[in-house]
Amino acid sequence: MNQLDLMRKLSIPGDSKIVLLVMDGVGGLPGPDGLTELEAAHTPNLDALAAQGITGLSTAVAPGITPGSGPGHLGLFGYDALDWDIGRGVLEALGIDFDLGPDDLAARGNFCTVDPATGFITDRRAGRIPSQVGAQLVEKLRVIRLPGVEVFVKPVKEYRFVLVLRGKGLTDGLTETDPQQTGVPPLPVEALRPEAKLAARLLNQWLAEARKLLADEHPANSMNLRGMARVPPIPKMPDIYKMRMAAIATYPMYRGIARLVGMDVLPTGDTIEDEVATLRQHWHAYDFFFFHVKKTDSTGEDGNFQGKVAVIEHTDQLLPEIMALKPNVLLVSGDHSTPWSLKSHSWHELPVLLRADFNRPDGVQQFGERGCMAGGLGHIRHVNLMPLMMAHAGRLTKYGA
Amino acid sequence: MNQLDLMRKLSIPGDSKIVLLVMDGVGGLPGPDGLTELEAAHTPNLDALAAQGITGLSTAVAPGITPGSGPGHLGLFGYDALDWDIGRGVLEALGIDFDLGPDDLAARGNFCTVDPATGFITDRRAGRIPSQVGAQLVEKLRVIRLPGVEVFVKPVKEYRFVLVLRGKGLTDGLTETDPQQTGVPPLPVEALRPEAKLAARLLNQWLAEARKLLADEHPANSMNLRGMARVPPIPKMPDIYKMRMAAIATYPMYRGIARLVGMDVLPTGDTIEDEVATLRQHWHAYDFFFFHVKKTDSTGEDGNFQGKVAVIEHTDQLLPEIMALKPNVLLVSGDHSTPWSLKSHSWHELPVLLRADFNRPDGVQQFGERGCMAGGLGHIRHVNLMPLMMAHAGRLTKYGA
Repeated sequence: MNQLDLMRKLSIPGDSKIVLLVMDGVGGLPGPDGLTELEAAHTPNLDALAAQGITGLSTAVAPGITPGSGPGHLGLFGYDALDWDIGRGVLEALGIDFDLGPDDLAARGNFCTVDPATGFITDRRAGRIPSQVGAQLVEKLRVIRLPGVEVFVKPVKEYRFVLVLRGKGLTDGLTETDPQQTGVPPLPVEALRPEAKLAARLLNQWLAEARKLLADEHPANSMNLRGMARVPPIPKMPDIYKMRMAAIATYPMYRGIARLVGMDVLPTGDTIEDEVATLRQHWHAYDFFFFHVKKTDSTGEDGNFQGKVAVIEHTDQLLPEIMALKPNVLLVSGDHSTPWSLKSHSWHELPVLLRADFNRPDGVQQFGERGCMAGGLGHIRHVNLMPLMMAHAGRLTKYGA
Repeated sequence: MNQLDLMRKLSIPGDSKIVLLVMDGVGGLPGPDGLTELEAAHTPNLDALAAQGITGLSTAVAPGITPGSGPGHLGLFGYDALDWDIGRGVLEALGIDFDLGPDDLAARGNFCTVDPATGFITDRRAGRIPSQVGAQLVEKLRVIRLPGVEVFVKPVKEYRFVLVLRGKGLTDGLTETDPQQTGVPPLPVEALRPEAKLAARLLNQWLAEARKLLADEHPANSMNLRGMARVPPIPKMPDIYKMRMAAIATYPMYRGIARLVGMDVLPTGDTIEDEVATLRQHWHAYDFFFFHVKKTDSTGEDGNFQGKVAVIEHTDQLLPEIMALKPNVLLVSGDHSTPWSLKSHSWHELPVLLRADFNRPDGVQQFGERGCMAGGLGHIRHVNLMPLMMAHAGRLTKYGA
């Protein structure tokens, strides 16, 4: 039996509350003094919880695999990320809070520059035009209509936009138009299976009209479409776990992933303080809260060791406010590592801390990579974390007699 | 998605270099002073790398499973050994540097003694005749011709030989002739599926002629055939990992396994010094080197504690020459344990040491079984090692957006 079926079978309602605190990209590598970001941070509250709780190291997807934000969160939510492929178009749409439905086919669009004489691409990112220019171009493209489907075009950032076709019979299994090099023309969209032919024809028609509309623009006189995808038919977490589940996140992409798996997305502000206030406000209405801290990742991506340390310390300072609500289970981890020295997502394992009434304490006194190496959870996988949270929350019945 | 497909999808070319140093059978058990072979050995260079690197314990195939050389190496090379069965006939042929092709059916042959009157086996190994006698008998058998296929017979050692039939339509799925006991006659080869009938008929014909030719020999007047197998259609490592890959090994079987998975096999001498010279000579022509040290296994099989310690120390002394080439990733482990006290391969986990720029250090100061038990890699499987080497070499792109 796969894990989702097992959870569906064993989960029972209850009145316990779970907080999953995700510090995005929290895992790190040694800095100037030989300590990682998390080890260098002054985190008395996390350390106290580690001393009472149980800790470990967790692999987000698989050993050596660097996850994108989608797979990293799917793992935390109990889905095997290798089984559930969320296309780039879908993630891009989620990233601008676009409410994707089951009949939607989403693509990521990139404005580009082509030589008007030959049609060959000269710049795949159209000189990275400012977001404001990108938005104006998108406005122009909104007039395009296609037979039998609704069309949505939305700006993302700089040269990036999202195209969504909504209608029956739109199937993915389509080639991208970006040839990944200059000096050649964009490729046509091709159907990789017969059912996708309708979508291919409509996308090519849209591209032809869009290129006509932008023919006199400079530098963005053409565009490519990538990662055409539909929302996967992923089972919804509230059905599987029999919990009322809510997401608190300041960035659209994480709200989008949470919505995809069936969580309610709560309106909140821009700061962690705002998120804590939102948690407090909705505390009685939900059983499970996905609480997302973004800036551990952004500072890691910037290679900003001290900045990442500061975000971790800031989160630690707010932890007593979360604990004052008396969650039955608190789990702290990240969706992937973003070591300051790599300035990117990485494959390194994530420290995990689980605190609950009946956790088995492990003697680890500090929440950090090396502390968690000796933790009582050992080396586990993200996909194991939901069952552990559920068990510690008293929300799983016995398997077998 | 299975791991090979995932690797094929995520691997990207690069200019980093990986050395996989395999000390065959390196894992051990406590000796006279309570230390294992590896713990007792004076290994300042391995210990220094352990202090900088990340360590762990790895299971070659599955808990409790003692691997042969084939499965042990397949695991190190990133193949799940339980998915890829390499037949005994194929391994025996690889072990004598026979260049097996896709149309080849290979069998291991054992000379035996039968009672001329009854045809019953009296000695399954023909008194372990000397290799020289075995080779003379093989010479006699070379005259046998079969319709529509080429026939190769090659001596291996003592009473063992290899028989290879080359031709279209030769399928495995065949029973062995060795009844595994004396006092009964050899069994006929039988086809376990209809496609194997041609091969069964040809092998039985070969056996009849071979037994006629050796009827007057003593003690080797008959033979059995075992492990009839074809080369499995295993995907090639250079295609999966997008690396130029080379093997440096002093023994034919390891060269053969490396060739099977698509590596170039480099000519080298008989000593570890020769192998290091070969590595240096070809350093710029390859991205990945499988470097095999044989004698940790042979000394273990001999129950020679001090001998195995000496081979480990010898390897350690040559390590600075390898590190002087500045590999981006060095991984040291073994294909299986060969504890001196068992005098055979065993199921015990293998110590693993990985050293790379962005490894997460774990505080382990000594490369040995007990040191690695506390290592940051935890308890992993051999099949996980290729993804980890690839990740640390910067040769895997992100999974998902």
